[in-house]
Amino acid sequence: MILLKSSDILHYKSVEIELLFKCNQDRILVVLNIFGHNMKFAITGKGGVGKTTTSSLLARLFAAEGKKVIAIDANPDANLATALGISAAEAQCITPIAELNDLIQERTGLQAGSVGGFFKVNPKVDDIPERFSVRQDGIELLVLGTVKKGGSGCLCPEGALLKSLLSHLVLGRSEVVIMDMDAGVENMGRGTAKGVDAFIIVVEPGQRSFQTARAIRNLAKDLGVSKCYIVGSKTRDNNDRQFIIENLSDFDVLGFINYHPEIAEADRVGKSVFEMAPEAITEVREIKNKLEQIIQKK
Amino acid sequence: MILLKSSDILHYKSVEIELLFKCNQDRILVVLNIFGHNMKFAITGKGGVGKTTTSSLLARLFAAEGKKVIAIDANPDANLATALGISAAEAQCITPIAELNDLIQERTGLQAGSVGGFFKVNPKVDDIPERFSVRQDGIELLVLGTVKKGGSGCLCPEGALLKSLLSHLVLGRSEVVIMDMDAGVENMGRGTAKGVDAFIIVVEPGQRSFQTARAIRNLAKDLGVSKCYIVGSKTRDNNDRQFIIENLSDFDVLGFINYHPEIAEADRVGKSVFEMAPEAITEVREIKNKLEQIIQKK
Repeated sequence: MILLKSSDILHYKSVEIELLFKCNQDRILVVLNIFGHNMKFAITGKGGVGKTTTSSLLARLFAAEGKKVIAIDANPDANLATALGISAAEAQCITPIAELNDLIQERTGLQAGSVGGFFKVNPKVDDIPERFSVRQDGIELLVLGTVKKGGSGCLCPEGALLKSLLSHLVLGRSEVVIMDMDAGVENMGRGTAKGVDAFIIVVEPGQRSFQTARAIRNLAKDLGVSKCYIVGSKTRDNNDRQFIIENLSDFDVLGFINYHPEIAEADRVGKSVFEMAPEAITEVREIKNKLEQIIQKK
Repeated sequence: MILLKSSDILHYKSVEIELLFKCNQDRILVVLNIFGHNMKFAITGKGGVGKTTTSSLLARLFAAEGKKVIAIDANPDANLATALGISAAEAQCITPIAELNDLIQERTGLQAGSVGGFFKVNPKVDDIPERFSVRQDGIELLVLGTVKKGGSGCLCPEGALLKSLLSHLVLGRSEVVIMDMDAGVENMGRGTAKGVDAFIIVVEPGQRSFQTARAIRNLAKDLGVSKCYIVGSKTRDNNDRQFIIENLSDFDVLGFINYHPEIAEADRVGKSVFEMAPEAITEVREIKNKLEQIIQKK
């Protein structure tokens, strides 16, 4: 039997918790409840629906109320940095996830593919995001990395590393992870977001993004993630909003980010939506509140 | 020395042509010119810019003038079938590319990873698209296939097979391949579209899709594809069109598909853009003509 102090458990990796779980199931369930590790979200959906906009605004709003936000750009066609208002020069300083491999091995003492014992595991992984990110406005941004050479191969190893990092992060009460996924469903095959607590699926008023949402929910079950929430995007009127609610009536719809010309304008001038589209901020604040209400209930 | 009849060469795989090329470079260069194999296009770009709309309209317009069109949905979050006006029931009859592996081996006599001699290679691959596709309005649609189970892995093997199939297809004068790619740049790492003659990069008036276009062009060079053309999408006025031309001044811009509410409406009701948005058809016809002019000049 191993005693844990509350100051320790915040930093313990999920691998360790799984090992403890085998020793004493009830006790660990209590620990998980105490530290409410249910604030890791993957923002996903069809290409171009508004995933990055949603991710960046959620990150900014959680950070504005004093939460520590780890924002992860898991899209090889990365643009979360700009959406967060981080300059291109600063974004270039971020070491991509792909280069964390050695460090994770150094910290955990685990060789890839092996299963380490509890005592061999070094629990200090909570500073990894800080060391390999750019911090701005209370948000630490990590990026997956992109394709550097045509024909050089896929990003499967990077995806696997990100999955591992996500499962390492055990969050405290005031911490949130927002992961901006790549478009579509392939990341679901890889299970990059396996460690998240919920998928937030962004849709626009069209069948193709609904089809993607349904596919994501089916695949999420295979990853052991049962919570999939909808954010409606680019809605122009109440008909559009109703259209989404009626077509996805078996989902919890968190709210809507209506079509605002300011969002397109932010992309034209390469600025953050947070700076340019105040109405969208109000809408995403409502979405965030609804999300927190749902989580507290469950 | 091997003599080729013109009726044969249409069906010869590029693997064989490469082997012949080694025997007699000049002769094969003539054959390639005669049969004008420069009509394989990959439609690519940031998520949600209008790749599927562009692909489906180009496919319909080439088919309408009597060309044989092979449309390939290379997006695991597939929706080209609907855009082409193929019903969900018909689309479900298509055998995904992933299941062609055995057949390609059977036809070519080549084991994966081996290099077969000229005489061992069975040239009959031209019927593969016909056998594993749905045909409608002069278009044969093939689909890559999607993720069937969360955490089951990536689609790298399927991508590799698609790349192989593309390089097998040597087109006749009246044949066109239109491949609708998945969003972003990861497919460039895999080199799925290595066998195409040109990338048609769809952009909207925003920095993020411009950034993707530039990344694609850089990666395309690594794949040996030097031709990258731009289609501007969702443009609302002349300012938008100029904004694209000025930001991508070092690209050939083929034309524009303006914002039409009918395109969004087609997605709402799950119908093809071809049926719903006549103005977009006119615009894509101009894009197709410009593309053909550029190709004939080069």
